[in-house]
Amino acid sequence: MTIDTTQTLKPVAGGKDQPPADDWRLFKAEIKVNSAYAKALAGSALSDEERDMLVGALAQIEADFDAGDLTTAEADPRTFLDERLAEGAGDAAEKFFAARANAESDLTALRMWLLDEIERIVQAIADIQKALIQQAESHVGTLMPGYIHLQPAQPVSCAHWLLSYFWMLARDQDRLTAAIGRAGVSPLGSGLLAGSPHALDRRALATAMGFGEVTPNSIDAVSDLDFAAEFLFIAALIGAHLNRLASDLILYSNPTLGFVVIDADYISGVGENTTDTTIERARGQTGRLLGEMTGLLSALQALPGGYVADTHEARRTLYAAIDMLNALCETIEGALISLDIRPDRMLDALTERLLASDLTDYLVERGVKLREARQIVNRLLDQAETKNTTLGEMNLQDLQAHTPKFDSEVFVRLDYTRSAARHATIGGTAPAAIRAQLRQALDWLIEAGLE
Amino acid sequence: MTIDTTQTLKPVAGGKDQPPADDWRLFKAEIKVNSAYAKALAGSALSDEERDMLVGALAQIEADFDAGDLTTAEADPRTFLDERLAEGAGDAAEKFFAARANAESDLTALRMWLLDEIERIVQAIADIQKALIQQAESHVGTLMPGYIHLQPAQPVSCAHWLLSYFWMLARDQDRLTAAIGRAGVSPLGSGLLAGSPHALDRRALATAMGFGEVTPNSIDAVSDLDFAAEFLFIAALIGAHLNRLASDLILYSNPTLGFVVIDADYISGVGENTTDTTIERARGQTGRLLGEMTGLLSALQALPGGYVADTHEARRTLYAAIDMLNALCETIEGALISLDIRPDRMLDALTERLLASDLTDYLVERGVKLREARQIVNRLLDQAETKNTTLGEMNLQDLQAHTPKFDSEVFVRLDYTRSAARHATIGGTAPAAIRAQLRQALDWLIEAGLE
Amino acid sequence: MTIDTTQTLKPVAGGKDQPPADDWRLFKAEIKVNSAYAKALAGSALSDEERDMLVGALAQIEADFDAGDLTTAEADPRTFLDERLAEGAGDAAEKFFAARANAESDLTALRMWLLDEIERIVQAIADIQKALIQQAESHVGTLMPGYIHLQPAQPVSCAHWLLSYFWMLARDQDRLTAAIGRAGVSPLGSGLLAGSPHALDRRALATAMGFGEVTPNSIDAVSDLDFAAEFLFIAALIGAHLNRLASDLILYSNPTLGFVVIDADYISGVGENTTDTTIERARGQTGRLLGEMTGLLSALQALPGGYVADTHEARRTLYAAIDMLNALCETIEGALISLDIRPDRMLDALTERLLASDLTDYLVERGVKLREARQIVNRLLDQAETKNTTLGEMNLQDLQAHTPKFDSEVFVRLDYTRSAARHATIGGTAPAAIRAQLRQALDWLIEAGLE
Amino acid sequence: MTIDTTQTLKPVAGGKDQPPADDWRLFKAEIKVNSAYAKALAGSALSDEERDMLVGALAQIEADFDAGDLTTAEADPRTFLDERLAEGAGDAAEKFFAARANAESDLTALRMWLLDEIERIVQAIADIQKALIQQAESHVGTLMPGYIHLQPAQPVSCAHWLLSYFWMLARDQDRLTAAIGRAGVSPLGSGLLAGSPHALDRRALATAMGFGEVTPNSIDAVSDLDFAAEFLFIAALIGAHLNRLASDLILYSNPTLGFVVIDADYISGVGENTTDTTIERARGQTGRLLGEMTGLLSALQALPGGYVADTHEARRTLYAAIDMLNALCETIEGALISLDIRPDRMLDALTERLLASDLTDYLVERGVKLREARQIVNRLLDQAETKNTTLGEMNLQDLQAHTPKFDSEVFVRLDYTRSAARHATIGGTAPAAIRAQLRQALDWLIEAGLE
Repeated sequence: MTIDTTQTLKPVAGGKDQPPADDWRLFKAEIKVNSAYAKALAGSALSDEERDMLVGALAQIEADFDAGDLTTAEADPRTFLDERLAEGAGDAAEKFFAARANAESDLTALRMWLLDEIERIVQAIADIQKALIQQAESHVGTLMPGYIHLQPAQPVSCAHWLLSYFWMLARDQDRLTAAIGRAGVSPLGSGLLAGSPHALDRRALATAMGFGEVTPNSIDAVSDLDFAAEFLFIAALIGAHLNRLASDLILYSNPTLGFVVIDADYISGVGENTTDTTIERARGQTGRLLGEMTGLLSALQALPGGYVADTHEARRTLYAAIDMLNALCETIEGALISLDIRPDRMLDALTERLLASDLTDYLVERGVKLREARQIVNRLLDQAETKNTTLGEMNLQDLQAHTPKFDSEVFVRLDYTRSAARHATIGGTAPAAIRAQLRQALDWLIEAGLE
Repeated sequence: MTIDTTQTLKPVAGGKDQPPADDWRLFKAEIKVNSAYAKALAGSALSDEERDMLVGALAQIEADFDAGDLTTAEADPRTFLDERLAEGAGDAAEKFFAARANAESDLTALRMWLLDEIERIVQAIADIQKALIQQAESHVGTLMPGYIHLQPAQPVSCAHWLLSYFWMLARDQDRLTAAIGRAGVSPLGSGLLAGSPHALDRRALATAMGFGEVTPNSIDAVSDLDFAAEFLFIAALIGAHLNRLASDLILYSNPTLGFVVIDADYISGVGENTTDTTIERARGQTGRLLGEMTGLLSALQALPGGYVADTHEARRTLYAAIDMLNALCETIEGALISLDIRPDRMLDALTERLLASDLTDYLVERGVKLREARQIVNRLLDQAETKNTTLGEMNLQDLQAHTPKFDSEVFVRLDYTRSAARHATIGGTAPAAIRAQLRQALDWLIEAGLE
Repeated sequence: MTIDTTQTLKPVAGGKDQPPADDWRLFKAEIKVNSAYAKALAGSALSDEERDMLVGALAQIEADFDAGDLTTAEADPRTFLDERLAEGAGDAAEKFFAARANAESDLTALRMWLLDEIERIVQAIADIQKALIQQAESHVGTLMPGYIHLQPAQPVSCAHWLLSYFWMLARDQDRLTAAIGRAGVSPLGSGLLAGSPHALDRRALATAMGFGEVTPNSIDAVSDLDFAAEFLFIAALIGAHLNRLASDLILYSNPTLGFVVIDADYISGVGENTTDTTIERARGQTGRLLGEMTGLLSALQALPGGYVADTHEARRTLYAAIDMLNALCETIEGALISLDIRPDRMLDALTERLLASDLTDYLVERGVKLREARQIVNRLLDQAETKNTTLGEMNLQDLQAHTPKFDSEVFVRLDYTRSAARHATIGGTAPAAIRAQLRQALDWLIEAGLE
Repeated sequence: MTIDTTQTLKPVAGGKDQPPADDWRLFKAEIKVNSAYAKALAGSALSDEERDMLVGALAQIEADFDAGDLTTAEADPRTFLDERLAEGAGDAAEKFFAARANAESDLTALRMWLLDEIERIVQAIADIQKALIQQAESHVGTLMPGYIHLQPAQPVSCAHWLLSYFWMLARDQDRLTAAIGRAGVSPLGSGLLAGSPHALDRRALATAMGFGEVTPNSIDAVSDLDFAAEFLFIAALIGAHLNRLASDLILYSNPTLGFVVIDADYISGVGENTTDTTIERARGQTGRLLGEMTGLLSALQALPGGYVADTHEARRTLYAAIDMLNALCETIEGALISLDIRPDRMLDALTERLLASDLTDYLVERGVKLREARQIVNRLLDQAETKNTTLGEMNLQDLQAHTPKFDSEVFVRLDYTRSAARHATIGGTAPAAIRAQLRQALDWLIEAGLE
């Protein structure tokens, strides 16, 4: 048992300022798993005295770790733990190592740690959702162009646009909740491959560690990394959604549009470095989230029969994804909270072309054929554009020159606010529908226990 | 309205022999969606007479389609449907098209169709699960080497190996069920982008089509293809699991091992073409499933703001994935049902090296240090191999030359059946544990409504 | 030998209107490969008479195919070819099949066919490059905002922007040329796995088929699909480049910017279906190109030792990629040729903020510290914006209030044309540099044999 | 200019033991690029004195870095460099920063560094190629089963199997050489986006830094990361090839086959941790290489128009890929050099079934129809297997009972060595062909300058 004391394990206690890096992130989970396992093996592989020695030694190691007193050159937390345990618990450790397989310990600790991380990401996404709601509440009546393939299509409420991202994230939250359920199954007690040879209450052990269920097949249990792949998929999907939001923000902040002003902390000036907090960098990371998932799934697919999971690569992939996702969430939340939305610029960008479908509806209601109605509307809009005027400034006679079906009610239709108000079904852009949607969003947060 | 009658739409009626190809797979779903929508718009955008004309025309088109009487050169089913509807319902169709946006119709039909396809895949996977159970029931007591990284590790029950795949697939089934819930949300009534301008009971409409919920935000609704990405991820994960099973079967059927004989229908002879039913080809497809998912997710991520989903690429991706997955399931199920498991060859492959961990446990129980116990066991196994004998054929004195801790009980431990029986925790390889696992598997099927 | 005549192989002759679909794309290549192989085996496995029978039968099959006279229900072209050959050449065919392995024939035909397809894609990309040059030639002096992360940064020549895509594609063309070299290596004569047992001049055979080299190791030869992976990677990279170009076009065609007007054939109106020719659909396909490549590479990675390539999946992947790439190239070329560039709108979008780096340079040249110079310039630009004026409309005194270093030459710097002219290094935006770049682009095409 | 001296930059001098980590890998390249740029700007943006100050300051920073004397909390090497340069060169630094854009400096340094890394990987792969040749030279005459889809197919030379990997890697080396050519193009002098406004000989500057060419378009130059994507693709392909080799080694080392014994340093024992040097872990990394490539390509595809490359994500992706690739190469080379090949076990695994194609040829030569010949051969092999004998032990009469075409020469064909010798075409398994292949492999290394 040699411990190299020339290289220093950095103090990791003290919380947020300096969280554990690399595999040390798993250290506390390894301690918890091993402590619970030692207790569960008492009466079969271990005597009560041996159990007490192990549990005591583990508590001491955790205390030293929390105090920042540990030093080691060992990179693998479980190997390090075993070394310290051998020092601290002597023969009890020997018996414990004989009864416990490395893979079951590592896999259980990985699941336990990931469950914690997912909980944190759920909170971070909830923070983005709340920022969206907060901005949306102030902009129910703010109108802006709704785009289809970057072409202006219809006037929509700014709150409507913001809340569209709320619901994408709500679906992702649902997926994360389901993933938590599937990851929260304990493989401990699977032994090397064939199951544990010791009398062991696996269910009680799982409960003691905070898991909801136990794995039903030890061969499957020691090779299962599906929970990691599932989380990475959800991470990639969250990345895709936040990328779209970031793209909207960057586009809308373009001075020619000027719909929003992004706080200087979250966007880089021309010629400056992008930094970790900028929205541009956040965008670059979403591709990598997809890459991490592809990488793990490709590796899983190529696994040989009777594989026992080496968590090594999966761990690194998860660290990378979690760090990216946390940074991404923080940036997007910060950018949203500080976002300066400019209703005047949004209003400036509305043109009568956004009312084309309303006008077509108007004519079809009055018995004009759809195809003909579309042609009339387009012709009128083109004419107005050429003459540098608007339909609203034309008189009824000019309009009736195109079809006698026009009556004075058409001028009521040439109103952006009324257009929005007409789209009043569930999920529509009318103010009442938006307010109902806002309530639904808040209810969602409350039901999810996130508000 | 010109319909090219020189090119023939192949008759598609008559069921399984010639199912609709390409986008025609969606045709019935488009009909159902449009019929339900016409009914829901009666009283606002449509009169009751117009509704009846539309619903009647749609019923006729469906009847013609089922009879194989349709001909067209049009590739897009909804465009074709619109053409026929314009022919069959005249002005009513005009009003209907003005009230309905293309994207909401296509997206709803895509979801409806996919939900059906997922149900079929759930059944196909259940068939594999049942085949695994059936084979497992006959081989609870059949012992084989359990491998770790292709190195023999411990004797395991053949049923244990088979059931490990049951549980991988059970997790995938759970994921499919969750995906069904998330896909079963109706976007109909979202209009072009801003919501429908017509009085419309979206919830009743959703229920009429068999959906559980309605989308809460029309901007999100018309750009949401997450349900497709989620399904493709699960498809890729199923692919990875079935690939591993296929790899096991191919390896175990290698004549040098000879654990199983694969029916000639499911494996290609040397120099012959692989065909659609062979296990080798099935394996080749799992990489493509991953590729389809990467492709869609990469496309989703790059979507511009205010995007309205063109379902074109997503549809093609889904067709490809579903066809591959169905073929894969059929091959694997067929190969499993006809699989000839050879207990004699499995038994032949057991060696005392598989008992190394049992023997180490035995010595540790008797107070030998773990490291020393491992060394003694390895030395003994090497010696026996060199002398071309076995530990079971040695006498106790020979063993005690290595450590006096050996007693006659060691010979009890040198028994593969007893070794298996010792691993009796939940999920372990002992016959009782396997039988409990079999019951649990059957219960799972029953609870999932699949048995 | 039974041929099902109830299902019809569609006539494929007559060229571009109805090119062969699915695996029938490979049919002519299979014929050529088998004909060359029959000739090469004369004197060893075959007599001269047998060779003549085979070559004659193959010529007849090709003639029938070209005439559209073939009917079959067989999906695999080589299997179909073998059936017909057995009918047409009797015992000679038997001997030929004994001497030839299926995999070597399929792999050689796949390479031969792919080489042709790559040549066509090289031409299609060259057409895009020429369209870029043509537009660029008319817009050397047209200035527009150059963007960094969608923020306007510096005035650049419109030709400069267009030509940036020329060079991305030039790199891809170089990659395709290298890929042609690596794909143009003949595996024919590798037999089943161990090499051909017949006296055979593999080099002469390769030359007769138009290949440059022969594979040096038969085990490698019959499992090598790297050439397909390499092509798919390049296809994905071309896709990424054309996606960026399409995104620029869509953004610049947004009415608020209005830099370009895209012809109606290449962009979908709001609420219309996107069609195969639209730029939006083209964009959607680039993600799938990446997916196809990921899929094949993932499959290759998982191949078992001593694999013999089943070309089945690789073929499908290549068909999909080639069809997407051809459609993408055609759309982009068409959109570029018909593109209406609007110099007036580009000019309207230039603001003095684009001259910030020029003004900073001006001050640094006069001894102002960089940081201070940047602050002065930003302050001035902000002031002008607030006062709704421009620096060019200020008088020198106003400027000198910020720093006495300003002199009258500053007004010369406040000129977009002069700003462009100052960036005169190779690759810069000055007119002379752009004209040199245009010549370099033309030279590139000529050297590549594409002009 | 504040430098935090509380956190320590670890000494990086002293070479291989502690190479620079993270972005510090790029530090020397940044110094070289900036030094060359300062020299090139003398006479335009800088005076000769200013150039000398800058070059001197850079030399001092490099010396401090090499001596391990630098301390900083700054993570970005170019930002750090700028800070030190501002300290060491004062006003000259100010002018230099005004003339140089950050992105052009970072991108040039990234290319310069990557070129070095690729050269190292070329050497590492050459070492694997040499190890393959060395083992192959000792095993030209060693016969083993050649597998198709893990089914034994034909006897092949062990050298033949080993060399198949030589040629896969040779293709990858060719690809790396082409990638070096495309990466070796200097973007320096592209300025912010529009080109440099200073008189500058970009070609001379490129030559001074060791680049072969200059980029022809500054807009393209500052957004081009294709060279990174191309390298990552090749890395993924190398990963796929080495994965296949590793899979062969793991399979062949399975005790039931026992063709090879892998040194204990390169394979993990049952229940032990896999470590960085084991072949199993090496396999796990190839999926991640594919993931890194997918990630970057997906990000590139989603880039907005007029993008200026933020090298941040690309850098991280490249570090990860290069570290994985180096570790992978080292493991595979070590495993190959120490590989214990067991000709006796390989010979034991040969069965007459491997001669099926030889025997079929023999009968076809004597006029038996192919189909019939195959049936006779299969029937005979099955019979022999059932009777627990071999064809070689039967007498001629027994054989002639199946067809009178058998003559005594058949016994000559029932010889593995003669079978191998018959496959004598280029690339075949006959000893003469293998020796020619070995010479060709050596010649390849010499021509590539790697021997």
